[in-house]
Amino acid sequence: MTTQQLTEQIQKKQSFLCIGLDVDLNKIPPHLLQEEDPIFAFNKAIIDATHHVCVAYKPNTAFYEAYGLKGWQALEKTINYLNEKHPDIFTIADAKRGDIGNTSSMYAKAFFEDLAFDSVTVAPYMGKDSVEPFLAFKNKHTILLALTSNQGAFDFQTKQVEGKELYKQVLETSKTWENSENLMYVVGATKAEYFAEIRKIIPNSFLLVPGVGAQGGNLQDVCKYGMADNVGLLINSSRGIIYASNQADFAEAAAQKAQDMQLEMASILKHAD
Amino acid sequence: MTTQQLTEQIQKKQSFLCIGLDVDLNKIPPHLLQEEDPIFAFNKAIIDATHHVCVAYKPNTAFYEAYGLKGWQALEKTINYLNEKHPDIFTIADAKRGDIGNTSSMYAKAFFEDLAFDSVTVAPYMGKDSVEPFLAFKNKHTILLALTSNQGAFDFQTKQVEGKELYKQVLETSKTWENSENLMYVVGATKAEYFAEIRKIIPNSFLLVPGVGAQGGNLQDVCKYGMADNVGLLINSSRGIIYASNQADFAEAAAQKAQDMQLEMASILKHAD
Repeated sequence: MTTQQLTEQIQKKQSFLCIGLDVDLNKIPPHLLQEEDPIFAFNKAIIDATHHVCVAYKPNTAFYEAYGLKGWQALEKTINYLNEKHPDIFTIADAKRGDIGNTSSMYAKAFFEDLAFDSVTVAPYMGKDSVEPFLAFKNKHTILLALTSNQGAFDFQTKQVEGKELYKQVLETSKTWENSENLMYVVGATKAEYFAEIRKIIPNSFLLVPGVGAQGGNLQDVCKYGMADNVGLLINSSRGIIYASNQADFAEAAAQKAQDMQLEMASILKHAD
Repeated sequence: MTTQQLTEQIQKKQSFLCIGLDVDLNKIPPHLLQEEDPIFAFNKAIIDATHHVCVAYKPNTAFYEAYGLKGWQALEKTINYLNEKHPDIFTIADAKRGDIGNTSSMYAKAFFEDLAFDSVTVAPYMGKDSVEPFLAFKNKHTILLALTSNQGAFDFQTKQVEGKELYKQVLETSKTWENSENLMYVVGATKAEYFAEIRKIIPNSFLLVPGVGAQGGNLQDVCKYGMADNVGLLINSSRGIIYASNQADFAEAAAQKAQDMQLEMASILKHAD
């Protein structure tokens, strides 16, 4: 998928919502545990109920790996279901990978070819040659961790490196990498005031923004400082939507929460015109 | 496994060799492709031929994920085979994970409980709360990326952060984390002169050292500057050992290469006494 197609989808749906499919068997409705594949059954119900109000889905691979082979199978079924039923929706493997060159190539193959995701999240610590193998894939996107939404972001990411914060060094350095037009960035919503600075460095790149809701970030603030001409934002919500209820009505409850966010986004897009 | 047990194994075998099980179906002997599970068949043959001269095995998860479900299954069979046949050998999931707290907990569960590895490699970019969930597991080890062996290490890791290189900040900061006694570190062999500085910060921590051989690092130099009282080194070799031959004699050829390294290590240990 191209970023142009992503922006068109955003305009059409009046939404820039990404739903995080972080399935924890301890939190899903108990009646689903009798299904042959409870994780996929849960995801399918959530997707069926919310696909009209969101533009992206983001399974975090940790939640699948924790269930071993069955988890990996559920991840495979989920991405296949998305690609078959909703090829217009942007898919993100939230995997936070990154390794030396030949190894990153294997990860890229895993997520872009074998699983056919549109994008994958990647950690920047190992530098250029750990990220470029992902960037080499045409119409696939590499979402680089810049400023994350957790407390630990202040341990290294905001430390001064040669006169500016490490996350800014990551943004600036990554712009020089080959095929950098395929980069997007993770920027946590909990630091809305940072978005203005970030937009000076990467005015039009898409930002994947976790931390609205459960982690305390504010949608209005993020949009005020972070929205670009092409919108350029994917606001992620995981737990706040998918665990809105753990009863029989869980899919409806998730749809309601997602629609609430979509309506707020539509209003923001209208005022941004 | 405790670090004490690891050191005892090193003394007994007179080896601190770790063999990287990075299985690429394009590089293994073609006759193995007819096996039901070529990846596991390859690993089993390598393990059977080398277990007496090494103290650790390190599958890199990228090489398994690239083959989807079958790959994950081969990884599971490999770690189960190691834990059954060679419970004295230290196992490393080279996964380079790291995420927000509740997600890192899922990764820790995946690698320490579901797959029952002794250790996992973790990236430091997201800070304390992304690493501590791994450290919470008793007698399990978290191998934090400090200074990697690739060219991209110079993009951020060696940049000055508040008066010292980022990788030194990572070493010093991580020492303050809860259960930091469960930390080991990745330090690339290609920068042997850095080991003296690193040992000032973490005198006794185990270091997992990639980059000897294929990537140009020198074993003697690494040991000269990096060896601790408890040895404290695991020297990894992947391609140099497992792809020594891609003919019918591949396991013997791997054993020969591994033994060459073990003999060099025995000689170093003897002179270090």
